[in-house]
Amino acid sequence: MKLVIGNKNYSSWSLRPWLLLHAFGVPFDEHLESLAGDDLSERLRQHSDSARVPVLVDRDLSVWDSLAICEYLNAQYLSDSAWPQDAKQRAVARAVVAEMHAGFAALRQHLPMNCRAQREIEISPAVRRDIQRIDTIWSQYARPDTEGNLRLFGSFGIADCFFAPVIMRFTTYDVAISQASQAYLNSMLAHPSLQKWVTDARHETEILSEEEVGVDRA
Amino acid sequence: MKLVIGNKNYSSWSLRPWLLLHAFGVPFDEHLESLAGDDLSERLRQHSDSARVPVLVDRDLSVWDSLAICEYLNAQYLSDSAWPQDAKQRAVARAVVAEMHAGFAALRQHLPMNCRAQREIEISPAVRRDIQRIDTIWSQYARPDTEGNLRLFGSFGIADCFFAPVIMRFTTYDVAISQASQAYLNSMLAHPSLQKWVTDARHETEILSEEEVGVDRA
Ligand SMILES: N[C@@H](CCC(=O)N[C@@H](CS)C(=O)NCC(=O)O)C(=O)O
Ligand SMILES: N[C@@H](CCC(=O)N[C@@H](CS)C(=O)NCC(=O)O)C(=O)O
Repeated sequence: MKLVIGNKNYSSWSLRPWLLLHAFGVPFDEHLESLAGDDLSERLRQHSDSARVPVLVDRDLSVWDSLAICEYLNAQYLSDSAWPQDAKQRAVARAVVAEMHAGFAALRQHLPMNCRAQREIEISPAVRRDIQRIDTIWSQYARPDTEGNLRLFGSFGIADCFFAPVIMRFTTYDVAISQASQAYLNSMLAHPSLQKWVTDARHETEILSEEEVGVDRA
Repeated sequence: MKLVIGNKNYSSWSLRPWLLLHAFGVPFDEHLESLAGDDLSERLRQHSDSARVPVLVDRDLSVWDSLAICEYLNAQYLSDSAWPQDAKQRAVARAVVAEMHAGFAALRQHLPMNCRAQREIEISPAVRRDIQRIDTIWSQYARPDTEGNLRLFGSFGIADCFFAPVIMRFTTYDVAISQASQAYLNSMLAHPSLQKWVTDARHETEILSEEEVGVDRA
């Protein structure tokens, strides 16, 4: 199985299925396509007609889009354990994930994922609303798992993976959130798989200048 | 079971789960919240913290977001029949649906759903790219069902529901597409449930002026 991803420092959509695979210990090869260069769409189209990463290649099947990849992995490789087992909790978990998938345009645009950076930035009212909504979701649904780690719906899964890029954004731009949400953020940031991704991102040298925003924090 | 929706003429996200429920003959009550007015967020927040429609209320459970609602309905009420049964086809169906859910920003912004209107509009290069991608998806995956209707993956399901707002957009703005895609569009437009939605939209009188774009076609 192969996961095609973008630069780890910047590719927020790639982080989601990568984290799911890595955290659950599913063996996979990683194929990194740089998100720089005029030939980007052309290169990405070799993996998927959508011309986007991530793409999962499982023998003769190509699955694109972070959410569809996570659903496929859950069904085929994770014995359906990456969603809550209770039908109602599962519906709510899918709701927060789908809300993340289609929404939060202001946050995405103005606080791009930039794992290795530490920045200060002006927060507009639209971004503030996005932050508040995420704060509500985290504080409402984060619960200790059996080992005491705070995870959404009480067990590491697709919902945590979908908010992992936000964990990185809030860390990079030092976004103020409630204590409950900060506890969830800290617990997720300590996850060994997320740490591995950040370490890899730090070792990357490529700069995508349009993703570099804000002023370095001292 | 109750589905909270926005104005039928304009609410593209509401159309998706409504169409799934109606086409599969699941009994449900419809609760329409006008998308006009300064108190919109406040009114929508009574149904869901996301402050968005659609919202499905099933006894003590509220599920928001069109995709999460469709997944819930598929699992709880449709015996898993709203996705292709083959695991690979299912993965690809979820990919096109998730791509639609998170993408096509240019199309959404510049060609808002406006079911009862017939308009002419300038198509920008970004919108053109979105149209071409949808054209590729439809011509690649539309196939006759057992009754000869063209449906994505050969059987009416969540994928058709997710592209139904695009069926309406292409119809309103008379967008030129390939013959194969046009055949799919015509077949979907004839679906009795979609016809019912359009008829209801025509009977609505409320105008959302920011959704009214383009010049009337003679
Ligand atoms: N909905 C898609 C979005 C993927 C996406 O936009 N990926 C970005 C990189 S993080 C990309 O491929 N950009 C290339 C481009 O836009 O040309 C998903 O969830 O995977
Ligand atoms: N991702 C959501 C998006 C829903 C959405 O944006 N709905 C619009 C109406 S079509 C809405 O509620 N707008 C109200 C607002 O933005 O205040 C879904 O799939 O249901």
